[in-house]
Amino acid sequence: MAGHLIDESAKGVFIIAATPFDLEGKLDLASLDRLVGFYIEAGVHGITILGMMGEAQKLTFDEQKRVIDRVLKQVAGEIPVVVGVSAPGLAALGALADEAMSEGAAGVMIAPPPGLSTDEQIEGYVRQAVDSVGYDVPVVLQDYPQATGVHLSVPLFNQLVDALPQIKVLKHEDCPGLTKISRIRKTAARDGKRRIAILVGNGGLYFPLELARSADGAMTGFAFPELLVEVYARFNDGDVDEAFDLFDDYLPLIRYEQQPGIGLAIRKQILYRRGIIACPTLRAPGPKLDQDDLAELDLLLRRVRERGGAATQW
Amino acid sequence: MAGHLIDESAKGVFIIAATPFDLEGKLDLASLDRLVGFYIEAGVHGITILGMMGEAQKLTFDEQKRVIDRVLKQVAGEIPVVVGVSAPGLAALGALADEAMSEGAAGVMIAPPPGLSTDEQIEGYVRQAVDSVGYDVPVVLQDYPQATGVHLSVPLFNQLVDALPQIKVLKHEDCPGLTKISRIRKTAARDGKRRIAILVGNGGLYFPLELARSADGAMTGFAFPELLVEVYARFNDGDVDEAFDLFDDYLPLIRYEQQPGIGLAIRKQILYRRGIIACPTLRAPGPKLDQDDLAELDLLLRRVRERGGAATQW
Amino acid sequence: MAGHLIDESAKGVFIIAATPFDLEGKLDLASLDRLVGFYIEAGVHGITILGMMGEAQKLTFDEQKRVIDRVLKQVAGEIPVVVGVSAPGLAALGALADEAMSEGAAGVMIAPPPGLSTDEQIEGYVRQAVDSVGYDVPVVLQDYPQATGVHLSVPLFNQLVDALPQIKVLKHEDCPGLTKISRIRKTAARDGKRRIAILVGNGGLYFPLELARSADGAMTGFAFPELLVEVYARFNDGDVDEAFDLFDDYLPLIRYEQQPGIGLAIRKQILYRRGIIACPTLRAPGPKLDQDDLAELDLLLRRVRERGGAATQW
Amino acid sequence: MAGHLIDESAKGVFIIAATPFDLEGKLDLASLDRLVGFYIEAGVHGITILGMMGEAQKLTFDEQKRVIDRVLKQVAGEIPVVVGVSAPGLAALGALADEAMSEGAAGVMIAPPPGLSTDEQIEGYVRQAVDSVGYDVPVVLQDYPQATGVHLSVPLFNQLVDALPQIKVLKHEDCPGLTKISRIRKTAARDGKRRIAILVGNGGLYFPLELARSADGAMTGFAFPELLVEVYARFNDGDVDEAFDLFDDYLPLIRYEQQPGIGLAIRKQILYRRGIIACPTLRAPGPKLDQDDLAELDLLLRRVRERGGAATQW
Repeated sequence: MAGHLIDESAKGVFIIAATPFDLEGKLDLASLDRLVGFYIEAGVHGITILGMMGEAQKLTFDEQKRVIDRVLKQVAGEIPVVVGVSAPGLAALGALADEAMSEGAAGVMIAPPPGLSTDEQIEGYVRQAVDSVGYDVPVVLQDYPQATGVHLSVPLFNQLVDALPQIKVLKHEDCPGLTKISRIRKTAARDGKRRIAILVGNGGLYFPLELARSADGAMTGFAFPELLVEVYARFNDGDVDEAFDLFDDYLPLIRYEQQPGIGLAIRKQILYRRGIIACPTLRAPGPKLDQDDLAELDLLLRRVRERGGAATQW
Repeated sequence: MAGHLIDESAKGVFIIAATPFDLEGKLDLASLDRLVGFYIEAGVHGITILGMMGEAQKLTFDEQKRVIDRVLKQVAGEIPVVVGVSAPGLAALGALADEAMSEGAAGVMIAPPPGLSTDEQIEGYVRQAVDSVGYDVPVVLQDYPQATGVHLSVPLFNQLVDALPQIKVLKHEDCPGLTKISRIRKTAARDGKRRIAILVGNGGLYFPLELARSADGAMTGFAFPELLVEVYARFNDGDVDEAFDLFDDYLPLIRYEQQPGIGLAIRKQILYRRGIIACPTLRAPGPKLDQDDLAELDLLLRRVRERGGAATQW
Repeated sequence: MAGHLIDESAKGVFIIAATPFDLEGKLDLASLDRLVGFYIEAGVHGITILGMMGEAQKLTFDEQKRVIDRVLKQVAGEIPVVVGVSAPGLAALGALADEAMSEGAAGVMIAPPPGLSTDEQIEGYVRQAVDSVGYDVPVVLQDYPQATGVHLSVPLFNQLVDALPQIKVLKHEDCPGLTKISRIRKTAARDGKRRIAILVGNGGLYFPLELARSADGAMTGFAFPELLVEVYARFNDGDVDEAFDLFDDYLPLIRYEQQPGIGLAIRKQILYRRGIIACPTLRAPGPKLDQDDLAELDLLLRRVRERGGAATQW
Repeated sequence: MAGHLIDESAKGVFIIAATPFDLEGKLDLASLDRLVGFYIEAGVHGITILGMMGEAQKLTFDEQKRVIDRVLKQVAGEIPVVVGVSAPGLAALGALADEAMSEGAAGVMIAPPPGLSTDEQIEGYVRQAVDSVGYDVPVVLQDYPQATGVHLSVPLFNQLVDALPQIKVLKHEDCPGLTKISRIRKTAARDGKRRIAILVGNGGLYFPLELARSADGAMTGFAFPELLVEVYARFNDGDVDEAFDLFDDYLPLIRYEQQPGIGLAIRKQILYRRGIIACPTLRAPGPKLDQDDLAELDLLLRRVRERGGAATQW
C-alpha cells in the first residue's frame, strides 16, 4: 500500500466529497457510490472524504467508518483517498486515522480546532495531533481560518514543516491567501526547506491565480469537478490564458457556490440536478434552498451553459 | 419513572459531574462510581453528566452511553440525573436523548452551538433541538455565551418559554448575568408566564447574589459541592448573612477554579487530592498543571481550611 | 436643501469614496477633488464618504470635517452625498452628523459597532444612534456583519423600520444575503410596511443577482464605478442578460478586489493607475501590495480589457 | 523631566483613572481633579489615564489633550503618569504620544488592536506602534485579550522585549495568566533577558497570587485603590498571609466590580458614593445600573465594611 500514500509531490484536483443522505437524513451509500464514480470519471487526481463539507462532524464514528470503508473499496486504489480525521479529542482523532489507514487511505487531513490563538498554541496542537496519527501517516494540514478561527502564519508553517516530516500537503484556504503561497515558496527556496504540496480550497474561487502563484492543485468541492480538472490540465500544459478563460466562464457559479453558510446546500443541489445523488438535503441543522434560490441557480446554470464549454453538457 | 422527571420546580444544587479518566485517557468507571457516591453524600439535589465540564465532546457515542448507564444505575433514582446531549447533528442529539431517557434520566441539557447569531437563528435551533428530543422530555436550556458565543436575550428566552413547554430549567451562566435573572422573573410575573427554574453556573462565582436575585439553585461543578449545598441551605433557611459568610470563605478558591481554560484541571486536581478520583488528568488536548500551579493550589486550600468551616475537613 | 435629502426612493450606484493620502499619510485634497470628479463623470447616482473603506476611523474629527467640506463643495448639490458618522461614542457620532448635515449632506450612514449580540442590544443601539443624529436626518443603516460582528435579522430590521422613520436605506452586505433581500421585500409587502431602499455592498460581488432580488442599487466602492453604473442601467432598461454579461466580464476583477483585508489596497492601486489619485497608499497600519501582487493585477486588468467593453478604456 | 520616565523598575499600584463626565456627558474636570487627589492620597505609585476604563475611545482628540493637560498639571511630577494612546491609526497614536510626553507623561500605553491574529501580525503592529511614539518614549504594552482578541504568547513577548528596548512594562491581564507571569520570569532569567516590569490588571482579581508569581504590582482600576496599595505594601514587607487576608476581605467586591460589560459602571458608582466624582454615568452608549443593582452594591459594601479594615472607612 505504501505506493498509494501521498507525499510532497501531490498535485492535481483532490475533490472534497459531499456525503449523501436520504430524505430521512440516513447515509445514502448508493448515492455515495455514484458520487465517487462521477468524481473518478471527471478525472480527479484524488478524493478527500469526511471534510467539513462532507458534514463529518454530524456523522457518528460508526458512520464515518462506513463511509471510509465504502469509498476505499470502490476507489480500489485507483487514486489516492485522503480522510478528514479532525475530532475534539485526540484519541478519537487517532482512532479514526488508524481506521482510515488500515482501510487503505493515502493520508489524513487535520484542521486545528477553534480556540487556538497563539503560534505556540497552534504548534502544540499540531504536534500532538500528528503524534496521535502515528509517525508513518502522511498528513494534510488544513488552514481554514474562516471556519476555525485559527490563523497559521508563514513562519509558523515553516517551523511545522521542519519539525514534522509527516506533513506533506497544505490545504490552503486562508483568505486573502495569494501572497501566502508566494511567501511559503520563497522562504522554502531561500532556506532550503522541504517543498510541501499546496492544494487550494475556498471552492476554487482563486484557482488559476493560485496555480500561477505555484500552488500544486486544488483540494476543494466545486460541483463541476471536471472544470477544475480541465483548468488544471490547461494550466499545466502551458495554456495559461485558456485556463483562465475556461475558469472565468464558470466563475459566476463558483462565486455563487462559495457563499458561506449556504454553499454546501447549493453544491448538493447541483449534484442532485446532475443525477448523481438521490437527495440534495443536508443533515439537520443545516440550510435549505427556497424557490427563489432554485430559480436563481437555474439562471446561473443556464448562463454558464450558454457561455461555457464541455463541462456543462449534462 | 415519570415521578423522577425534572420540572419547573427544580431547585438546589445540581452538580456538574466531571468524567474521570485513567492515565491513558480511558474512562475510569470505578472513579466515576466514587465520584457519584461523593456527590450524593455531599447532599446535592441532582447530578448533571456529560456537560462541557464533563468533557462530553471528547467521548464517543459508546462512551457516552456507558457513562449514562453507569451513573443512572448507581444513582438508582435517589436524585434526578440530567444528561447533556449537545451534538453537532440533531440526529445524534436525539439519539443520545433517547438513550438517556430510556435509562431513567430526569431530563436532558441542550446548549445552542457556536455559529448562531440572531434571535431568529437561536429560536430556530432551539425549536429543532427540542423537537429532536421528543415532546415529553424535560429540557434544561444552557445559556453559556462565554463558551458558545450564543447570546440569549430575555425577550427571546421568554418567547421560547411560551413556545416550548418542554423547557423547564434555564442553566444560567451569562456574565454579567445578575440583572438577567431579575428581568426574567419580572417579565414572567408581569406577563403571567410560566416560572422557569433558574440554576446558575459560572462555577458558582456569584451564587448567593444569584439566589438573592431569585435563582433556584446552582448547576455547576465546584470541587466542594458540600459548600454549595450548605450555602443553598442557609440561604433557604433565611440565614442570608451566614450563607454569604460561608460562601465568602471559599470565594478565593471559587475564583481560582473559575479561571477559563484551566478551571477543569484545577477542579479535577482537587477531586484527586480529596481521594475521589484516581487520576486528575483531562483527555488530550487539555491543560496540565505544573509545579507552580500545584503549590499555589496548596496555598489556597490551606487558607480556605484555616478560615473555613466543616466542608474542608477532608 | 431639503430636496437633496435621500429617502426611501434612493436608487442607483452610490459609490463609496476612497480617501486619498499622500506618501506621508496626509490628506491629499487635490486627489480627492479628482476622485469626486471622476465619480461624477462615471455617472454615479450618489457618493458616500467616510465609510470603512474611506478609512474614516483613521481620520481625526478635524480631518473628517475637512473631507466633508471639500466633497460637498465640489459636488455642489449635483448628486446626494451620504456621510458615514460611526464613532465609538454617540456624542461624537451626533456631532459629526450635525457637521455633515449643516454642510449639505443628503443623509448619514451608521453601522452598529462590534460588541452588540442580541436583537435587543442592536435595537437599543440603533435607537440611541438615530436619536443622536436628530429626527429629521435620513439614515442609511449599514448591515456589514463580516466587519462588525453584528448580525441584523429580517424581523429585527422590520421592527427598526417600523419604529424609526429616519431609516431610509439599508446598506446591505450580509453574506449570504440574497435570501435576506427577498425576505425583506416579501415581509414588507405582506405586512404593509414601508419599502426601504436597499443598496448592496460587498464590492458588488453579487450585484446583478441582488438587483434581480429587487435591490435598488449598490453602495460600494469598486474601482470601475462606470461598470456598476452600466450594469444598473441595462438592468433597469430590462436588458437583464446584457447586464449579467457585462458584469461577468468584470467579475474576475470584482472577486479580486473583494478579498478581505487587502481589497482597499487593490482598489486604491487601480485608482492610482487610472491617474485619479496621486498615491495608492493607505494610512498605517494597513496592507501594502508587493511586486507579485502588482503583476497579478496587471494580468487581471489586461484580461478584463481584452474581454470587456467601454469601461476599461483608460 | 527624564527622571520621571518609567523604566523596568516600575512597581507598586498604578491606578487606571476613570474619566468623570457630568450628567450631559461633558468632561467634568473638577471631578477629575478630586479623583486625582484621591488617588494620590490613597498612596498609589502611579496613575494611568486614557485607558479603556477611562473611556478613551469615546473622547475626541481635543478632550484627550485636555485630560492629559489637567492631570499632569495636578500631579505635578509627584508620581509618574502613563497615558493610553491606542488609536486606529498610527499617526493619531503618535500625535497623542507626542502630546502626552511633551506635557510631562512618564510613558505611554499601547494595546494591539482587534484584528491581529498571528504572532507575526502582532509583532509587526507593535514594532510600528512603538516606532510611531519615538525611540525615547517608555512604552507599557497592554496584553488584554478579553477586550482586544489579541493573544500575546510568552515567546512572542520575549522577542518583543529583545527587539524593542522602549518596552518597559507589561500590563498583564491575560486570563488565565498566572502561569504566564512565571514563564516570563523563568525564560528571561534562563536566557539573560531584560527583566520587564509586570503590572497586573483584571481589576486585581488575582492580585496577591500574581505578586507571589513575581509581578511587580498592579495597573488596574478598583474603586478602593487604598486596598491595592495596602496589599502591595504588606506583601512587600513579607507579611504575605496578611496581604492575602486583607485582599480576601475585599474579594467579594473585586469580583463584583470585575464583571465584564458592567464593571466600569459599578466602579464609577462607588467613586460617586465615596464623594469623589459628581456623577456616576458613563458616556453613551454605556451600561446603567438599576435599583436592584444599587441595592446589591449596598449589600456588598456593607459586608465589606463589616468584615474589612481601614480602607472602607469612608
